[in-house]
Formats: sequence, structure tokens, C-alpha cells
Amino acid sequence: MSRNLTVRADRIASDIDALAAITEPDRPWTRRAFTPMFLKGRAYVEKIFREAGLETHIDAAGNLIGRRKGRSGTGTIMLGSHTDTVPNGGRFDGIAGVIAALEVARALADAGIELEHDLEIVDFLAEEVSIFGVSCIGSRGMTGVRPDEWLDRQADTEAGRIDLAEGIRSVGGDPSSQVARTDIKAFLELHIEQGTILEKGKIDIGIVGAISGITRVEILVEGRADHAGTTPMGSRYDALAAASCLVLGIERIATELSHGASYFAATVGEFSMEPNAANVVPSHVRMLIDARCVDPKVMDDFVIAVSTLTKQTAAKRSVTISEPRRVSNNPPTPMSGKVTEILAASAARIGATSRPMVSGAGHDAAFVAKVAPAAMIFIASKDGRSHAAEEWSENDDITLGAAVLYEAVLELDKT
Amino acid sequence: MSRNLTVRADRIASDIDALAAITEPDRPWTRRAFTPMFLKGRAYVEKIFREAGLETHIDAAGNLIGRRKGRSGTGTIMLGSHTDTVPNGGRFDGIAGVIAALEVARALADAGIELEHDLEIVDFLAEEVSIFGVSCIGSRGMTGVRPDEWLDRQADTEAGRIDLAEGIRSVGGDPSSQVARTDIKAFLELHIEQGTILEKGKIDIGIVGAISGITRVEILVEGRADHAGTTPMGSRYDALAAASCLVLGIERIATELSHGASYFAATVGEFSMEPNAANVVPSHVRMLIDARCVDPKVMDDFVIAVSTLTKQTAAKRSVTISEPRRVSNNPPTPMSGKVTEILAASAARIGATSRPMVSGAGHDAAFVAKVAPAAMIFIASKDGRSHAAEEWSENDDITLGAAVLYEAVLELDKT
Repeated sequence: MSRNLTVRADRIASDIDALAAITEPDRPWTRRAFTPMFLKGRAYVEKIFREAGLETHIDAAGNLIGRRKGRSGTGTIMLGSHTDTVPNGGRFDGIAGVIAALEVARALADAGIELEHDLEIVDFLAEEVSIFGVSCIGSRGMTGVRPDEWLDRQADTEAGRIDLAEGIRSVGGDPSSQVARTDIKAFLELHIEQGTILEKGKIDIGIVGAISGITRVEILVEGRADHAGTTPMGSRYDALAAASCLVLGIERIATELSHGASYFAATVGEFSMEPNAANVVPSHVRMLIDARCVDPKVMDDFVIAVSTLTKQTAAKRSVTISEPRRVSNNPPTPMSGKVTEILAASAARIGATSRPMVSGAGHDAAFVAKVAPAAMIFIASKDGRSHAAEEWSENDDITLGAAVLYEAVLELDKT
Repeated sequence: MSRNLTVRADRIASDIDALAAITEPDRPWTRRAFTPMFLKGRAYVEKIFREAGLETHIDAAGNLIGRRKGRSGTGTIMLGSHTDTVPNGGRFDGIAGVIAALEVARALADAGIELEHDLEIVDFLAEEVSIFGVSCIGSRGMTGVRPDEWLDRQADTEAGRIDLAEGIRSVGGDPSSQVARTDIKAFLELHIEQGTILEKGKIDIGIVGAISGITRVEILVEGRADHAGTTPMGSRYDALAAASCLVLGIERIATELSHGASYFAATVGEFSMEPNAANVVPSHVRMLIDARCVDPKVMDDFVIAVSTLTKQTAAKRSVTISEPRRVSNNPPTPMSGKVTEILAASAARIGATSRPMVSGAGHDAAFVAKVAPAAMIFIASKDGRSHAAEEWSENDDITLGAAVLYEAVLELDKT
């Protein structure tokens, strides 16, 4: 990359490498929230926050915050992401966003720029699905939407079985207090795309217009457990064969919807069968669909189409199929139009190519958006791989993204 | 049933009811081999064997045998089946065959008939897949084909963890001795059909011409574990969707083959998926096909067709699919043509309708056929249900089958 940027690629690369080295050695790269390895990573992040001149503290929700005081103290411009990983998770998912945000603070200091607003760099607690079975614990806590009953959730740790309240205390938070922040004037998050749109399009920056809603739909198929040897082919009520029709039908419906105006993806991610015995015709299948969309109307269309599919399949194969049931339904989150425009203009100003995108994955920004104008940028993921050891993003791309954040912060500070 | 038969329906009904009452109370009807409940059932069977005038003993293989001496002692006519059940298994699978065989001995005694041959009524040990994970233990042992290494197989019992050798000793057998019987002149087994051919055809007796071979074929599908939210529909390598194509293709191939000259059935009975996480595109599927056929050539055709299907599916969906692998391959067992003819003639003589059939399920007769002329008859199963609490056969049908056995024994005794 030949551009002359205010942010420094070498510092970003060095920090990401240093965090990658803090991993469970037998399964790179793993640093799950609430584990000793996570706390070791946090200690490193706090050290580099301090070296960048930031005042650090852990807020009540368990987020690590590095603050740079502004001239007028009229509110906070916040940048951040997370440093926890999934098991065998990647070097960049979350980490790239925290380090790019830190680099913005360092570049401002290098340039001797004092902002009007306070600047906060945040490492959100447990963005990934944690050992307690829930995700985005820190960003939910900061925005006052962490369910109280979650504090009783249990998990096994090296120190024994603990609940989430104890887990939050163990990272320095205070679970007894949950107050939504009201001082955030704007929030920016850089994240790896975890898809192939930027890579295939050879585009530097994705400007995220919305974070998809996630609807999970459960379907139960009930056939009959007959003897695999003695039941003629035409006399079976095979739940697996019926479920296979559903899997292919769901794929077809989702593919058709994905050709429409708004992003759509659906996945049968959970699938289990009973009795799962070699010599018995399968009698029961449970499947769980994960569907992502930024338009609730399109999500409704999907569920209706799946319902029709189940009725047709049940009739054709003489099996019983439950009405598709929404077991969870998180609506989409639009990003701030104003902040999104500033990010797009910032990209253009430094000569980076960009395109509007939606995020199929959930992010901390979706929660911060509940209390403040929030927006995200994506940078390319090699082959779209993520939540895997192969996850990779080029340091030049991360650096370019950090430069976009830098420009956007200067612009936001003027308003 | 208005026929005037030498065998008595009331005795058959009474014994089947009495055995049904010997069950684990919370899951009728369960009397698994090697459990205390099985031994309780065996004690009842031994009692009624003795009451019928039979001399009883347990052979080295663990089979309960009731013997009626013949005039000349020139060999044995053997009848039998098994009294063990699967978990939640039925009242009739195996039991009907043992009790019908016993009724033949009783009817001979009632008629004051002394046979030339010895007559043996056998309750074979552990025909069903047992707690040791293997089946037909008694009939394999009696015919000298029980693998020696099976004796080391472990299972948990109320008395602690034991091996199969100890299990065989616990029922009164001697695992150190395994000698194939050479004195059996003919073997007959009555069994419930476990299918719907007799019921749908309103036919009294199935004359089994062959017992299917069973080939188990394993297929592994490897796709790619991508993020369910961020991976566009057209950019996925979804192992579950590819596996669903295979399941439906296997069903289609099997259905086509079942329309041919010889019986064919195939079932994907085992199916598991990884990572089986809601938000991850499925990366791996393992499936196991159970295929049944009486013609090895047709079985080969099936495996070749499945191999072609896997190659087409792998190419179409850009996933890796393993070459279908035969993990087990038990060839079909033809029944004795001569004994089969005698059974068909016996059915005709008492006015029972009959038709040739093949057995899709394995039976003790398949092992006895290795050392003696063997044949089977089927009687109807209600709705084809088996290995389930709903398993049902009409007592009149069992009685008619017993009468066929009785006629056949008299005929066999002449030769």
C-alpha cells in the first residue's frame, strides 16, 4: 500500500501478532471470555491502551475502556470491538476492530490533535457466544439491555462452577449495576467482513447500512420407526427423507429471496435424528433454521414460504411436520444514516473504494445503536473464512480501515 | 377361525400372554438377553417345556433346548426362535416362534405320536442386538460361527461390568466350548413378518425362500464450516444440503431396485452432522446405509449406483464425498428348497393360503442354515409394526402357523 496515511501499519500488525500469541497453544486462536487466557489478553490490551496515553478502567458491564479526554467534554466519540474469540476462532474477528480503534487514538496523539469530545476505545466483554451460552454481554450491559436472569447462568471454569454475575466480577465489572450510557455522540466499529463480497469485488471498505435481524425457526418431523429390513420402500414414513426435502426446499427459498433487493441467508445449522439406529427407519428429525435479513417483511415472507413447504412435504410423504416455530426473533438494526455518510465520505477522502453492505452477523454495534448513532465498516476476509484457524485479513486492509476511522472521528468531532 | 386343527389356540394365547407379563414394567415389552427379566422369562419357558414332557437343558452356546426323544434317534428335527426382545420391543417377535414350536410338541403328545427323529424345541440366546452390541449369539454358537473375539465384548449389568463369556456362563452356557451341530436333519422357524405384505394381501402364511443379505455402506460428506450469517447463499459448501441430495437419491435408487425381480430395501438409518451449531454452515455429515437384498448382483448394482450418485452430487455442489464404503457385507441365505416345498404343501393341506416371500430381517434360521436344511414361515404383523409396543399378530394366525409346522414335522419325519 503506497498511500501516505496518518495511522501506522507496523503498530497494527505488531499488536495483532502479539494478541495472536496469547492463545491456548493446542487450538489457535482461542481466547474465550472469562478464561485465564482472555484475562492475559486483556492485560496486554490494557498495557497498550496505557502506552497510547489512554486512561483505562473496566466499566460495570465488564468492558475495558481506554479514554482520551476531550477539550469540551460535551460527550463521547466511541470506537471499539472485542478481543474474545470463539473456540479455535480467528486472529482478526473483533481484534482488528479494537487495534484499529487504538491506532486512531495513537495517530491523534502523534499528530498532537486534541478533540472537542472525549474519545473512548472499548474492548467489549464476551461478544462471542461465551461459556455462559450467551453473547454481547458487555455491549448489552453498557446499553442497559442485559437480561437480569442471565446473571444466574452457570458455566464450568478452572476455578469451579460459577454464575455470570461472578464471571463479570472476575473481569473487574459490577453486575449489580446496569445503567445505559447516555453520553455517546457516535460509535464506530471496524470488523472483518466474514464473507467474500469485498474480496470478490476487490473493494477496500464495506459501509454497513444495517445489521441483519436473526430469526431462528424450529421444525419437527415425525414419521414412523419401522424395521429397515422388512418395510417395503413404498410403505415407509421416513422422517429423514422428508427432512431432506425440507433442507433442499429451504435452501431454494432462501436462494430466491437472496436475489431480491435486501440481503437474505438461511441455514439449517442444527439437525438431529431419532432413533439413529442402522436398522430402523428414521422416525423423528428436529431442525433449526438460522435466517438473516435486514427487512422484517422479507423475513415474514420466508417463514410463510417455509410453512407452505412443510405442508406440501407432509402431504406428499404422509408424515407429520410441525408448524415452523420462531424460537427467537431479533429484529434488524439500521445503522445511523448520518454516521454512515461520514464513513463513506472519509473513505473517499483517503482514496479508498467502498460500497454499501449489510452485516449478516451480529455485532456489538447493534447494541450500542440502541443508545447512540452507530455505524460500522468492514474490511475483506480472505475466502470469507471466519471462526476458524484459517481466518485472515491483510494488514494493509486493516490499516486502511483504521485510516477511515481516523478521518471519520475528525469529522464527527466537528459536529 | 373355524378350522379343526390339532394344535390348540388357547394354549398358545395363554403362553404368549404369560411371557408378555414378564417385562420391565415401565417399558413393555422388554426382556433383553442376559438381564434378570430375561432369566425370569427363560424360567417360565423351561417350566412349560417340562410340562409338555420335554427334557430340557442349556447347550454350550446358551440356548434353552427342550427335547422329545425319537424312536430311531437318526437325527434331530429342530423348531424354534427366541424369547429375548429389543428395548420396548414386542410381544411376538421371536416369542410366537418358540411358543408355536412348543405347541407342535404338545399336539404330538396329545395325538400319541412318536416320531422317528428326535424333536428339539429351541429358545435361541440373544437373537436381538444384545447389551454386548451383537446379535444371534445362540444360533451362531450352535453352528460354530460365533467369533472368538466376541467373548471379550463388555457390557454393564446390574451385577457390574462383565464380558460376553461371563454373560454366556450366567445363562448356563459354556463359552469355552463351541462345536457345530451335525445331527440336525431339518430346522423350521415361525416368525412374525414385521412387514405388511401378508396383511395387505390377506394371505395366511409366507413361505420364506431366502433371508436377505445386509450390506452397510458408509458415506462421508465434507463441505465447509462458514458463518451462517455472512456467507451468501451462492457461496456455500453446505454438507447438509449435499447429504440431503444423497438421502433422496438413495431412496430413489432403492425404490427403483425394489420394483425389480428380487426384494430390495435401503435405509439411511444413521445420520450425524458437524458442527451442528445454529450459526455455522454444516461442514461434515456421516451417514450409514442399511441395504437388504437376496441377490448379491443387485446389491452390487445398488452400491455402483450410489457411487455414481455421490460423484454427481460432489461435482454439482463442490463438496467432497467419500467413495461409498462397505463396512459390513453379510450375504443372503437361501432356505432349503426341499423344506420350503414341504412347508408350502403343509399349508395347502390344512387349507391355509400362502405365498413365497423373502425375509428382509435377519433370523436365527440364517445361521442354522449353515449346518442343516432350514426354512421359515411368516405370519401377518398388524400394520407391519415391530420392535415397538404396538407390535401385534392375531393368535389365530399364530395357531395356523403352528398347524403348518405340525404338518411339516410329520412330513419331514417320513424322510
